[in-house]
Amino acid sequence: MESKKRRGILDRLNAGEVVVGDGGYVMQLERRGYVKAGHWTPEAAVEHPEAVRQLHREFLRAGANVIQTFTFYCSEDKLEISGNVSNISGAQINEAACDLAREVANEGDALVAGCVSKTPCYVKSHSETKVKAIFKKQMDDFLKKDIDFFIVEFVDHVEEAEWAVEVLKTSSKPVGATLCISPQGDMHGVPPGECAVRLVRAGADIVGINCHLDPLTCIRTVKLMKAGLENAGLKAHLMIQPLGFHTPECNLGGYTSLPEYPFAMETRAMTRWDVHQYAREAYDAGIRYIGGCCGFEPYHIRAIAEEVSAERGFLPPASEKHGLWGAALGMHTKPWVRARAHREYWENLLPASGRPKCPSMATAADDYEK
Amino acid sequence: MESKKRRGILDRLNAGEVVVGDGGYVMQLERRGYVKAGHWTPEAAVEHPEAVRQLHREFLRAGANVIQTFTFYCSEDKLEISGNVSNISGAQINEAACDLAREVANEGDALVAGCVSKTPCYVKSHSETKVKAIFKKQMDDFLKKDIDFFIVEFVDHVEEAEWAVEVLKTSSKPVGATLCISPQGDMHGVPPGECAVRLVRAGADIVGINCHLDPLTCIRTVKLMKAGLENAGLKAHLMIQPLGFHTPECNLGGYTSLPEYPFAMETRAMTRWDVHQYAREAYDAGIRYIGGCCGFEPYHIRAIAEEVSAERGFLPPASEKHGLWGAALGMHTKPWVRARAHREYWENLLPASGRPKCPSMATAADDYEK
Amino acid sequence: MESKKRRGILDRLNAGEVVVGDGGYVMQLERRGYVKAGHWTPEAAVEHPEAVRQLHREFLRAGANVIQTFTFYCSEDKLEISGNVSNISGAQINEAACDLAREVANEGDALVAGCVSKTPCYVKSHSETKVKAIFKKQMDDFLKKDIDFFIVEFVDHVEEAEWAVEVLKTSSKPVGATLCISPQGDMHGVPPGECAVRLVRAGADIVGINCHLDPLTCIRTVKLMKAGLENAGLKAHLMIQPLGFHTPECNLGGYTSLPEYPFAMETRAMTRWDVHQYAREAYDAGIRYIGGCCGFEPYHIRAIAEEVSAERGFLPPASEKHGLWGAALGMHTKPWVRARAHREYWENLLPASGRPKCPSMATAADDYEK
Amino acid sequence: MESKKRRGILDRLNAGEVVVGDGGYVMQLERRGYVKAGHWTPEAAVEHPEAVRQLHREFLRAGANVIQTFTFYCSEDKLEISGNVSNISGAQINEAACDLAREVANEGDALVAGCVSKTPCYVKSHSETKVKAIFKKQMDDFLKKDIDFFIVEFVDHVEEAEWAVEVLKTSSKPVGATLCISPQGDMHGVPPGECAVRLVRAGADIVGINCHLDPLTCIRTVKLMKAGLENAGLKAHLMIQPLGFHTPECNLGGYTSLPEYPFAMETRAMTRWDVHQYAREAYDAGIRYIGGCCGFEPYHIRAIAEEVSAERGFLPPASEKHGLWGAALGMHTKPWVRARAHREYWENLLPASGRPKCPSMATAADDYEK
Repeated sequence: MESKKRRGILDRLNAGEVVVGDGGYVMQLERRGYVKAGHWTPEAAVEHPEAVRQLHREFLRAGANVIQTFTFYCSEDKLEISGNVSNISGAQINEAACDLAREVANEGDALVAGCVSKTPCYVKSHSETKVKAIFKKQMDDFLKKDIDFFIVEFVDHVEEAEWAVEVLKTSSKPVGATLCISPQGDMHGVPPGECAVRLVRAGADIVGINCHLDPLTCIRTVKLMKAGLENAGLKAHLMIQPLGFHTPECNLGGYTSLPEYPFAMETRAMTRWDVHQYAREAYDAGIRYIGGCCGFEPYHIRAIAEEVSAERGFLPPASEKHGLWGAALGMHTKPWVRARAHREYWENLLPASGRPKCPSMATAADDYEK
Repeated sequence: MESKKRRGILDRLNAGEVVVGDGGYVMQLERRGYVKAGHWTPEAAVEHPEAVRQLHREFLRAGANVIQTFTFYCSEDKLEISGNVSNISGAQINEAACDLAREVANEGDALVAGCVSKTPCYVKSHSETKVKAIFKKQMDDFLKKDIDFFIVEFVDHVEEAEWAVEVLKTSSKPVGATLCISPQGDMHGVPPGECAVRLVRAGADIVGINCHLDPLTCIRTVKLMKAGLENAGLKAHLMIQPLGFHTPECNLGGYTSLPEYPFAMETRAMTRWDVHQYAREAYDAGIRYIGGCCGFEPYHIRAIAEEVSAERGFLPPASEKHGLWGAALGMHTKPWVRARAHREYWENLLPASGRPKCPSMATAADDYEK
Repeated sequence: MESKKRRGILDRLNAGEVVVGDGGYVMQLERRGYVKAGHWTPEAAVEHPEAVRQLHREFLRAGANVIQTFTFYCSEDKLEISGNVSNISGAQINEAACDLAREVANEGDALVAGCVSKTPCYVKSHSETKVKAIFKKQMDDFLKKDIDFFIVEFVDHVEEAEWAVEVLKTSSKPVGATLCISPQGDMHGVPPGECAVRLVRAGADIVGINCHLDPLTCIRTVKLMKAGLENAGLKAHLMIQPLGFHTPECNLGGYTSLPEYPFAMETRAMTRWDVHQYAREAYDAGIRYIGGCCGFEPYHIRAIAEEVSAERGFLPPASEKHGLWGAALGMHTKPWVRARAHREYWENLLPASGRPKCPSMATAADDYEK
Repeated sequence: MESKKRRGILDRLNAGEVVVGDGGYVMQLERRGYVKAGHWTPEAAVEHPEAVRQLHREFLRAGANVIQTFTFYCSEDKLEISGNVSNISGAQINEAACDLAREVANEGDALVAGCVSKTPCYVKSHSETKVKAIFKKQMDDFLKKDIDFFIVEFVDHVEEAEWAVEVLKTSSKPVGATLCISPQGDMHGVPPGECAVRLVRAGADIVGINCHLDPLTCIRTVKLMKAGLENAGLKAHLMIQPLGFHTPECNLGGYTSLPEYPFAMETRAMTRWDVHQYAREAYDAGIRYIGGCCGFEPYHIRAIAEEVSAERGFLPPASEKHGLWGAALGMHTKPWVRARAHREYWENLLPASGRPKCPSMATAADDYEK
């Protein structure tokens, strides 16, 4: 069913292009009223397709070259445990999500990635057979539809990610694999370099990091993956889709160990200017698939696209509604706001929290455990 | 054209009901890629109706009883000065915005408010004739469509708001008027109590405050308006639609005088728990029309609706995707996250900024001017 | 017994000279191990005269023109209630303190001020007769020794201060009176302007503010006193001896209502550069007796003397060990420390707390009471 | 000349006793007006012996078992380079400092340690002969007087410290050696464990860390030294005299790289309660010589002595002026202050800075250099 003319993800990365990823779905749709925090399941693809479609469109308009299917936590075992959805099957959600992603991707120059994430079954059973069967079922749902490649994401044990990659590679489509781990390694202590080697040996075409930690920390982890691959004489493309939050206190635990997770993360949100810095550092680290995860809203994705616009040679559609580095403030009536219409102002601003009774850092839950 | 069965805004307020307002459009649509900061004009109603419709729906779903037309800064003189739109007229935007608001309002139990805001003409000409002509033109656009009442908002000179009210009252529809002023009064120093008296004498049925300052400060100002009305022996309903940001440093200048305005306001965003406190204090102050302005996203409106759900007797549709006070965290896999599934945790949390090199308060631009 | 050649406090102030006061004794001697927090009584004048003498000397060396007797809370009723001293009488302490102050004052160009502070008797009995008898007794102790003038300080009811002034004026010596009140007035709500008028009418030659609040707030209060005197057609010299701590949260309650009082005030301590700003603003407000209270260490007094050195025409002895505005850093081995050897660096520095889990402001205990 | 009855430093440590060190001299005497920042030389021992004697006494009274001679930076080459002293020789200072330390030590149960610190000659010449000659000259000054043992301190190249130890051991007196290094090692990258081994092999009886970094970081470094000694099969006593400031941003550079050094360090000062935690963690790490360096005032030393009072079996003299854990607040007139008269309050307090426009962490100068 796939369009013949569409240039695939590997065509683009092999050509040295920067691929802009999309942002985070579940936290943003929670704020919009369509996802339930705690469960974080994607039944909205069936229940409220207009809401999912609109968010896809905003990411596309912001410059995303990939629309990920809204299928987070959409394995049958996870849906069952969550208990959030009774009358909708995983297959229904997966299929609806593929259609929505395809519809919007076709409105622009974007590819559709079918996404799988970690399964409760892995920790519970540790059975390769069972876990692979779950990934196989989800893959089969996707293959009924027109998707361009796969992404394995939000997995914190490299072994489970290897199993997912092995399953998905049976489809002959490209596979990207991102772990949600820290520079210290996965949940069993496997270092990032070794994780990358194992994922590539399992068949992954693209490897990297998503979620759990802030952008600059995730770049450090991807650099360790890159070094691991180089030491092993392996090659793969690198991708990154970090949190859109400042999380200086976290290490192994990730942002779920912060006291503010998940309902008071506002204070930690990145500005668009933080994202410019992130995109530049990711690019300089050799990463060419650059997107975001939880906390990345459409304007954050636009900031990535604007930062790499010289390399890409164009701006995204949504930049028609954005003066670069605040340029559109130049027509403001207040002189002190006009004075902010340039890069130097925003790059050097240290934004105040407006909360004088709040601290700047918290004690993470995984610190409590020590 | 108006539906006979619809209960009007005054029917509701006279009956003592709590009316939940909607949230902020321009800042949220800027982040979604449809509004240009600096200009803040609403051409998206024509250019990208699906984006405006979706945000209307999210507010409706979050519990809003009023859908405001997306017509901010949509007077002919403002559109011209802004220079952001060339091939779309103000009348086109006003009419498209009315249709979008009506379409979504009819999906639930909501009213449509046609909104006008301050005009550049007032400060420039100070001509009652010219300013009233501008408001009359915008009103005539609205009256071609099916709207339920009018709101005058974001006006910082009470005199201009009086003129707007006088024009809109010629329509015989109810009129609400909210000023964007501080407890110190309007830009000419007219105190809030006197402002309220003048607005009611001009014909306003509902008076209050919107935008510019944080919720608790705006409540203080509305209380001063209420006291002014009582002293004058006048009666009117009270409404409030404050910023969704912490702005402890501002006084006369409002949030545009903060260094973070408009592109680094993230740190100051209110949590849903801040909104619970706000909604309760607004209710206790006798305010019955409770909504939000810039910074209020759909989940903030839901928090208002949840806080007053006992008084209203029902929860909004979007609460099906929200455990009250974090209840849905009770099924989380991490024990320390499960421990957050209750009100006491979130009410007492002082969220960290995650930005240890940033201060907690800024020097506002209007302080610099002293 | 008084030296004929010594120029008195009024000679100096009438001549328009700046009089530099000394700093705080009880908090500093608590840290040195000689005063017990909670009691704050001055038995060290008898028990450890070398420690009191040394601190007097450090203030003299820092530029102080007045050495206050170390007789805080040394009324008989306070000593009895405190229960901290059993075998030493108030008279012994008062007399020893006068001798120590005189000894050190005579080592330089300084005067001795005999100091009285508020009595428990006032709040307990509210009897003018009893309270005046207590002040009379302490005055009689002082008059056995060679003191130059009196200071009434740390009184928060203007009435009690009036009574003290009336007693002390029977000695025919000059009397200064400082209240520990906020811009909102004394504990009975008497505004600062009226307090000043009443104190001058009671006989005070110098009036002002000491302790309880930070320097800039205390300057605001002294300005209100000055305005009150001007409105009443009265004249008096102005003095100020504020806290050496930042206390932005306090209003009526003063620093004892801060959670950090008294054992975690370190974070709030003023730098010498904060003191430069204070001394300049005090001078510009027309205050000519400028010193400090709790938190003012010798180097803070030196900063006052250095700030007004142009007006006074000389530097204090301790400036031989201080490069103005950090000049002595010019010979440091590290280039980045050498770069700090000038005024602009220190005036613009916003010092970090080094405590990322601490907030910048606290909830004061008197706010809890609301 | 040494008293026969005095129990030496090794007698005490070998017996398992906790030895409480004294605090910091140069920064405290700078604030008192006797030392010039930038130079930091100890000419006050000759110029103002009463000031040095008083600070010695305060540390003794706070519980110190060792009085260090006030001879920091008192090598001939350093004095010459500094240029701060013209008419006083190093020998005069060294001898006067020994007399002052002895006089005060004899007022209690304390020993005198003759102290040498790093020499400019080391970095300039790197000549073992020249550097050893400088240490020999200073040692000879000390040996004319009655001192009990030597301390080498504030050296950041382990090689220089080895040379100092080798010289001082020719006296047959015990020698302690503390480096001012981070957990990352000395200025040539020699790790702490290896530094400890080299110092013990050079003859040091006691090894550890002083100055430059905050207490908990210094404990980490001493633990690394301890592990290094254990791995090498060596034994030595451990000592620690850290900064009395919070310095979370520093690593190699130490506190001189902080923007606040040296004139705005107030905000970072440790409270007495921070010191309790430090003393306990130092004790638990097996360190038995526990004192302080810059920033440790007499009340901080008292906090060490109070924390280890159970182990030592007694409280220091200055505790007669201190209620343990704030107990003396129990008689305060304000109920909310009385409520602070217990350990739980102070252990859990997160003190506010009172500076809402200041950040909580700074960018250290050695970070700028990267």
